[in-house]
Amino acid sequence: MADAHAPERPLANGQTRIDFQTEPARYRHWRLAIDGEVATLLLDVDEKGALFEGYDLKLNSYDLGVDIELADVIERLRFEHPQVRVVVLRSGKPRVFCAGANIRMLAGASHAHKVNFCKFTNETRNGIEDLSEHSGLATICAINGTAAGGGYELALAADHIMLVDDGSSSVALPELPLLAVLPGTGGLTRVADKRKVRRDHADFFCTTEEGVKGKRAVEWRLVDEVVPGSKFDEVVAARAREFAAKSRRGAAGPGIALTPLTRGFTANGVDYGSLAVEFDRARRIATMTLRGPVIPPPASADAMLALGAEFWPLRLARELDDAILHIRLNEFEVAAIVFKSSGDPAEVVAYEHFLGANTDHWLVREIRHLWKRVLKRVDLTSRSLVALIEPGSCFAGTLAELPFASDRSYMLLGRRDGDNKPPATIALTPANFGAYPMSNGLTRLASRFLADPSDLDSAKAELDKMLDAETAQRLGLVTFALDDIDWDDEVRVFLEERASFSPDSLTGLEANLRFAGPETMESKIFARLSAWQNWIFQRPNAIGEEGALKRYGTGQQPVFDTRRV
Amino acid sequence: MADAHAPERPLANGQTRIDFQTEPARYRHWRLAIDGEVATLLLDVDEKGALFEGYDLKLNSYDLGVDIELADVIERLRFEHPQVRVVVLRSGKPRVFCAGANIRMLAGASHAHKVNFCKFTNETRNGIEDLSEHSGLATICAINGTAAGGGYELALAADHIMLVDDGSSSVALPELPLLAVLPGTGGLTRVADKRKVRRDHADFFCTTEEGVKGKRAVEWRLVDEVVPGSKFDEVVAARAREFAAKSRRGAAGPGIALTPLTRGFTANGVDYGSLAVEFDRARRIATMTLRGPVIPPPASADAMLALGAEFWPLRLARELDDAILHIRLNEFEVAAIVFKSSGDPAEVVAYEHFLGANTDHWLVREIRHLWKRVLKRVDLTSRSLVALIEPGSCFAGTLAELPFASDRSYMLLGRRDGDNKPPATIALTPANFGAYPMSNGLTRLASRFLADPSDLDSAKAELDKMLDAETAQRLGLVTFALDDIDWDDEVRVFLEERASFSPDSLTGLEANLRFAGPETMESKIFARLSAWQNWIFQRPNAIGEEGALKRYGTGQQPVFDTRRV
Repeated sequence: MADAHAPERPLANGQTRIDFQTEPARYRHWRLAIDGEVATLLLDVDEKGALFEGYDLKLNSYDLGVDIELADVIERLRFEHPQVRVVVLRSGKPRVFCAGANIRMLAGASHAHKVNFCKFTNETRNGIEDLSEHSGLATICAINGTAAGGGYELALAADHIMLVDDGSSSVALPELPLLAVLPGTGGLTRVADKRKVRRDHADFFCTTEEGVKGKRAVEWRLVDEVVPGSKFDEVVAARAREFAAKSRRGAAGPGIALTPLTRGFTANGVDYGSLAVEFDRARRIATMTLRGPVIPPPASADAMLALGAEFWPLRLARELDDAILHIRLNEFEVAAIVFKSSGDPAEVVAYEHFLGANTDHWLVREIRHLWKRVLKRVDLTSRSLVALIEPGSCFAGTLAELPFASDRSYMLLGRRDGDNKPPATIALTPANFGAYPMSNGLTRLASRFLADPSDLDSAKAELDKMLDAETAQRLGLVTFALDDIDWDDEVRVFLEERASFSPDSLTGLEANLRFAGPETMESKIFARLSAWQNWIFQRPNAIGEEGALKRYGTGQQPVFDTRRV
Repeated sequence: MADAHAPERPLANGQTRIDFQTEPARYRHWRLAIDGEVATLLLDVDEKGALFEGYDLKLNSYDLGVDIELADVIERLRFEHPQVRVVVLRSGKPRVFCAGANIRMLAGASHAHKVNFCKFTNETRNGIEDLSEHSGLATICAINGTAAGGGYELALAADHIMLVDDGSSSVALPELPLLAVLPGTGGLTRVADKRKVRRDHADFFCTTEEGVKGKRAVEWRLVDEVVPGSKFDEVVAARAREFAAKSRRGAAGPGIALTPLTRGFTANGVDYGSLAVEFDRARRIATMTLRGPVIPPPASADAMLALGAEFWPLRLARELDDAILHIRLNEFEVAAIVFKSSGDPAEVVAYEHFLGANTDHWLVREIRHLWKRVLKRVDLTSRSLVALIEPGSCFAGTLAELPFASDRSYMLLGRRDGDNKPPATIALTPANFGAYPMSNGLTRLASRFLADPSDLDSAKAELDKMLDAETAQRLGLVTFALDDIDWDDEVRVFLEERASFSPDSLTGLEANLRFAGPETMESKIFARLSAWQNWIFQRPNAIGEEGALKRYGTGQQPVFDTRRV
């Protein structure tokens, strides 16, 4: 492979790791303006603000750094601006909406970065749709200029796509003819399955560099409406009012501030407060220890609001999200993520009851949805996931989703020799039976018990109980229950074995075994579409020295191996 | 890439192409014995009967040649032995059921061969399931020995898996630990979605070289029963009687002989009689001209039986199947398959009416199911598919599925200048609305009209009419209707452009756009599973000089790039 052993290219500005934390004051590429129920989000990419050295972000093209800001602003719309009911997405530049992912960035990125970049951008776009479907905050995309490749794919995440009818503004997916790759940020799936563009029209559209504009773009369902330039702003404003009027988002407010995470980075770990990450680099393991709450749940919803981002469930979700992303993009050598927890499971259950008693509160809803997305992010992380359930742990309710998201879980039977901690338990709460669907649309427990749905009923009958290892194994909640004599050896051998396997084959295996049952548009994006794109990202026709990605912009034509596979 | 420009390795016995036609007298690897309603199919691979030079087929391992015989015997069970209600699949060798795909074959095969080999073996296994679901011929797999990798995947296609309980016989998917690839013939999908093995059990099973045996194999749903060796034959026979008793396959008979196809191979084509294939190698196009019937439909079902394999719909389906497979495995340079037809569409419609009037006849049902499978094979062929609907063509009923299966279709408006043929027409019959589901479970027209199901109703209102190009375009049945002035240039430019694109990106594009809508176990096999396997088949960890596939059996350990992607 061209890049099999290539180092990651240097980050700009002397950074040593990609940081997923940002805040509006530091944005270089996006501008958010809020006017009552309507927010306007302008994409105005700073050409010189690239994440890596070696390329400029011309024509509103993006790299992961641009998308990290987008993900951040979407989170802030959820938590800081609960009164906003519609966001209008526009370009801050004339004649171009967005040129998509930066080609020089793609051409120079390692395979691992490309794949994980695409995964993150996909998650961000799925998050925009989730924001509309579950939080009632609709997105209108107002395209004044060209929306090409990832630019159009961003538009596809919106509820309503408007295109100016000026004879030149167009939407396009030119990846195939220009670069010999796929539109990899959900474009093909959304064209086929969300917008239900007829397959032959889609074939024409996706093989036509210049894209489609005007009336045909509407007839082929590529956009929802075209509007003359003279009336564009006026009609966009009218649509924003219409979408705001039909939104069911409560006009609650004020929001809470998403304050910066407290993070202590050391050579071998990160401490977040509610979460500790420890790297055992020799064994290629990252151990994440989730810490239970240190104070009881607040007495009221108002007290929860007062806690804001310090409210334990919210804080932990944000920390877990940041840690997973950090490992995905900065720690490629980690073979397995081991989930542990420490704390009082009864306190965790108390928090679950608090959340359950306040499900109609906007902040509780947003916290549940955040956990849903973070847990999906865990499911989609291409590292082996392992849960170790030991004395002193607190895998209850929401935290129990981590063992269920894991490829395997081990639970210690009884006490450890010489340790006075009581035996480990696991506890189910109503949250395990509906709040956190996976990308296949089913809960983790429903996916787990596909063979016999009565197993789901048996589990539900044990709600809110502290289940010991024997019971957990009988109910099928853990893979193996081991006593103290076997524990250390079994776990060690398993983790060593895991690290000895080909990382690629594990990625493929886990991608297939984690998602039994139905497929959704979202799961199709991460399976059918992403897997094919990853394949193409390995093929010399794209990435070889004579391939299209490498030769784009050089004036030299790519040379293709013409065999069809 | 290790094999990017490698030639295919030489075929054994001096053959110049892979031939998908065979017959029982020529089988080297399978033995079929029929006893009333029960057939026994023995896998007894001839070690020296490999398709290519350079490896032996040890331990009942298989290559494409072995699977071509399996596919043939399955077809013959359908057509030649309609009285058979159950087939028992066993090994003809002691202590081993089947070791799966031959590793030396895989290690030396080109990427294009590997991918198309897996596709064919998947189609054969899907065909075994189709035989049970739609023709009532159940399969029992009786495993006496080890069923590893593709051997267990073959078992997974059966309705009932029996494993001898002798302390050593086991089922296993050792691909990942041994070879750093996936079980690529549906194994992961069938473990997760057909047998609904719990995901953590599946994770353990698929990472354990030695597999699982005895009671655990049943508890984990990997097999349906284990039987002591002393009683194995007796219980297998009893199960065969039970499955035969509950089969709804009619005890009709005798069958019809699947006589050898008449094929004339030349340097630039193949003539089959009802189908002509012409290669334009400079333009990388294969033109397939389907010929309408030359005699009217038979007067009765008995007359159809008397025609046997010469009955036009059956003959054409078999010819089309062979031609598609020939292109897939022998003609890798073909970029586009252009479907044309010639004949009287009214005669084609007459045949559709004959089939429609005899839908309860076993032979008609089998012919419909054969067309269903052949058309799915077309859908899954990774070449651009184009239909040209011109004066003199007969795209009616079943034949109209080819334009609907195509990535694009072009229809000529009116007559050609200087040609007295009447304008082209296309005709729909009831067969277009149910007989031929795609692998997503929907008909091609339903997939085409996902956006607005009323379009499907509009099409249905035109049943049995000869629709001209304007009408066909209005109904959305063709992509473009062009008059004679534009036709030649438009079609030529389109085909030239198609041949200029990266073949890989077209494969990925078409795999995404052809299958909108729901996913099924079958479509998951060809999307999620196959795409990941194809990716792994490109990764140095599998196919590099230090990769697991290359190093297997050499005594040297593979060396892996340990970065997770």
